[in-house]
Amino acid sequence: MNILEIIEKKRDKKELSKEEITYFIEGYTHDKIADYQASALIMAIYLNGMTKQETTDLTIAMANSGEKLDLSSLNEVIVDKHSTGGVGDKVSLILLPLVASLGVPVAKMSGRGLGFTGGTVDKLESISGYQTDINIHNFVQNVEKIGISMISQTLNLAPADKKIYSLRDSISCVESIPLIASSIMSKKIASGAQKIVLDVTCGSGAFMQSKEKAEELAEEMIEIGRLANKETVCVLTNMDEPLGYAVGNSLEVIEAIQSLKGDMPEDVKDVVLELGAYMVKLAGKGENIEENTARLLKNIENGKAYEKFIQLVENQGGDSSYIKDINQFPKASYIENVYSQKSGYIQSMNAKEVGKIVCALGAGRIRKEDSIDNAVGIILNKKVSDKVEKEDVLVTIYANSKEKLEEAKKKLLEVIKIEEQEIERPKMILEIMK
Amino acid sequence: MNILEIIEKKRDKKELSKEEITYFIEGYTHDKIADYQASALIMAIYLNGMTKQETTDLTIAMANSGEKLDLSSLNEVIVDKHSTGGVGDKVSLILLPLVASLGVPVAKMSGRGLGFTGGTVDKLESISGYQTDINIHNFVQNVEKIGISMISQTLNLAPADKKIYSLRDSISCVESIPLIASSIMSKKIASGAQKIVLDVTCGSGAFMQSKEKAEELAEEMIEIGRLANKETVCVLTNMDEPLGYAVGNSLEVIEAIQSLKGDMPEDVKDVVLELGAYMVKLAGKGENIEENTARLLKNIENGKAYEKFIQLVENQGGDSSYIKDINQFPKASYIENVYSQKSGYIQSMNAKEVGKIVCALGAGRIRKEDSIDNAVGIILNKKVSDKVEKEDVLVTIYANSKEKLEEAKKKLLEVIKIEEQEIERPKMILEIMK
Repeated sequence: MNILEIIEKKRDKKELSKEEITYFIEGYTHDKIADYQASALIMAIYLNGMTKQETTDLTIAMANSGEKLDLSSLNEVIVDKHSTGGVGDKVSLILLPLVASLGVPVAKMSGRGLGFTGGTVDKLESISGYQTDINIHNFVQNVEKIGISMISQTLNLAPADKKIYSLRDSISCVESIPLIASSIMSKKIASGAQKIVLDVTCGSGAFMQSKEKAEELAEEMIEIGRLANKETVCVLTNMDEPLGYAVGNSLEVIEAIQSLKGDMPEDVKDVVLELGAYMVKLAGKGENIEENTARLLKNIENGKAYEKFIQLVENQGGDSSYIKDINQFPKASYIENVYSQKSGYIQSMNAKEVGKIVCALGAGRIRKEDSIDNAVGIILNKKVSDKVEKEDVLVTIYANSKEKLEEAKKKLLEVIKIEEQEIERPKMILEIMK
Repeated sequence: MNILEIIEKKRDKKELSKEEITYFIEGYTHDKIADYQASALIMAIYLNGMTKQETTDLTIAMANSGEKLDLSSLNEVIVDKHSTGGVGDKVSLILLPLVASLGVPVAKMSGRGLGFTGGTVDKLESISGYQTDINIHNFVQNVEKIGISMISQTLNLAPADKKIYSLRDSISCVESIPLIASSIMSKKIASGAQKIVLDVTCGSGAFMQSKEKAEELAEEMIEIGRLANKETVCVLTNMDEPLGYAVGNSLEVIEAIQSLKGDMPEDVKDVVLELGAYMVKLAGKGENIEENTARLLKNIENGKAYEKFIQLVENQGGDSSYIKDINQFPKASYIENVYSQKSGYIQSMNAKEVGKIVCALGAGRIRKEDSIDNAVGIILNKKVSDKVEKEDVLVTIYANSKEKLEEAKKKLLEVIKIEEQEIERPKMILEIMK
């Protein structure tokens, strides 16, 4: 077996064996296969595709390329949750304490964000004292003790995926369903998940712009899950406008806290309850989805989810007074409203464009080494389908630079489209695939 | 313009503009574009193809990537000749002095061989004293003085082609018609040719195994020639068995000398006369192909071609006593016959396999830095369609190692296929395309 034969086979649209895929991943991870050879193979995969079996073999080989988290000592079914990404996505912060409050064990390693806004880890770090890089022993102990721990990716999980992802980025091979699917699933498998609930976002702020593409990706990941013996459910959600009202790290944490206290935006609630109901089901803690939804709602109302979040924060060394009094979060220097210049109904608010505006305020990273400003962001005052009058507040901007503030104002007015005709509130849950 | 957009375009099967192709070639030549990016683009070209215009733009950009030979001071139409390669191919050694003897100026830069046997330069160097790396000024002066000079590639011609060729070799992207065609034509254009006669070999010992593939390649090169204003004629020749009787450097030079003296194998003669007649025509020295053929034959018979070869050798500092007395060429230590084990007719003699056997004797290079043994090789005693009796000599082996000799004996008996039924002598000229 050698890499030339492997490239040739995929070039000629033949199916690669598990051994060939493993040979490639091991060789590439250990620099025995050159970047230019991996590059040719990846372009051939992009153009000639992969069968479901090949994609699964690729996923497993990448999952096996580095350290793996072993959660078997917990003696519980560990259900992981992942989103394909969006703008204003604070779902994990609400959803995970919520399901944990129902006895579903949560052992979650999250990444930092790149682009738009921060990732879940960045958001947790905006809570003073919260430790995201504790060691694995303590991580597992925390889950045993209080049923939940949320940390950063401290292990070298799926390094092959990291290498291939960065290569794909520099050879115009990002948008490939088998490569996206294997990238996501390899990290989930390496992080010890036994079952997986995926939030497959779709729309202007998502990687998959159309429902068809999102379905294709979901199908691929479900099949990988089936072949890898990791039951996977995909919830296709709408990501045409930002999720909830807040976009920006601290602002999203505050919105999450308010949500856990019962004041949850409707669109966020739709997504949280649907994902949560399936997490409970997959964890073996409740067969019936409607019943699960009702139990989740109840734990919001009775404060148990909020209490679990306080417990999580304290257990990780965070200062829970931040949670109890959100005024403690550092504030941006400039807080200004943007007013509507006409009356009508909000037709659309391109999530990707909003994400870029917030990123330009300093809330996101362009490069991995960039630092992020937790205080900046925006709070929408209106959502798609809402009625607005001229001079109504459309959005409040939180900035630390006058110049960036003015730039954001101008751009937000361009992005928020208002027309006379009424439109319906967008449906959040587009499809459940399993 | 950036390389990511260029890769994306070709990935999506769109046509690249001349500017984009030039940007890629210039960037890659000067290491501003990484190997892994070039690699992705080349795989995309391999799989999605190129239009004739793109292939021509690629050819010109590669031809312009380094030094170029300017032969305009000769004030003559310079016709270059190139072969897509074969086993036992001593055609240039015979053909070029022959056409020069008819007043067709020959300014030929040749490469060294890789694989099978040496290239024309390696063969010339087996003549004691022959200088293949003279400077360009002397090279042009030699052509002016005696109408012919044959040297090695002393200029840095088409470095982009060199880089891309070696990359293709390491990513399984060799067999691509647009990439092969542009590789050949870029070197011809950089070496100052105004018109080009190509020997497109086809069969077991050639790069193109089938006539269809050879036609496709020829068509591509003719179209590049047309678009680049370099009239190109392709002669498709048979390369199923080795050309002539000798395979090995000195042995081939000796066969070339004998051919120039009038003792030319029939198959070699077919190829030499056809290519020669078109070279004479393209040089503007004779419109009628049949008449040209007759004039070429006459210059073999009257000794003028042989005299021109002597003149070439002496003018390049070579010892022409080698030409006058071929016994001066160094001899191999072991010279042994291989005898037929049965009677019948030779059905086939896979040229590629024969090439490998001779290469194993030491006559070829596996890597560029390998040295070659000029004395070793084989002389066939029979050709395809010849009748053989049991115990007839099939071939004589010239070796410098007993072990390699025995290995060659064994393998040659396997390669030379003898059956009872009579077969026709293979046709050498398969098609003329222009």
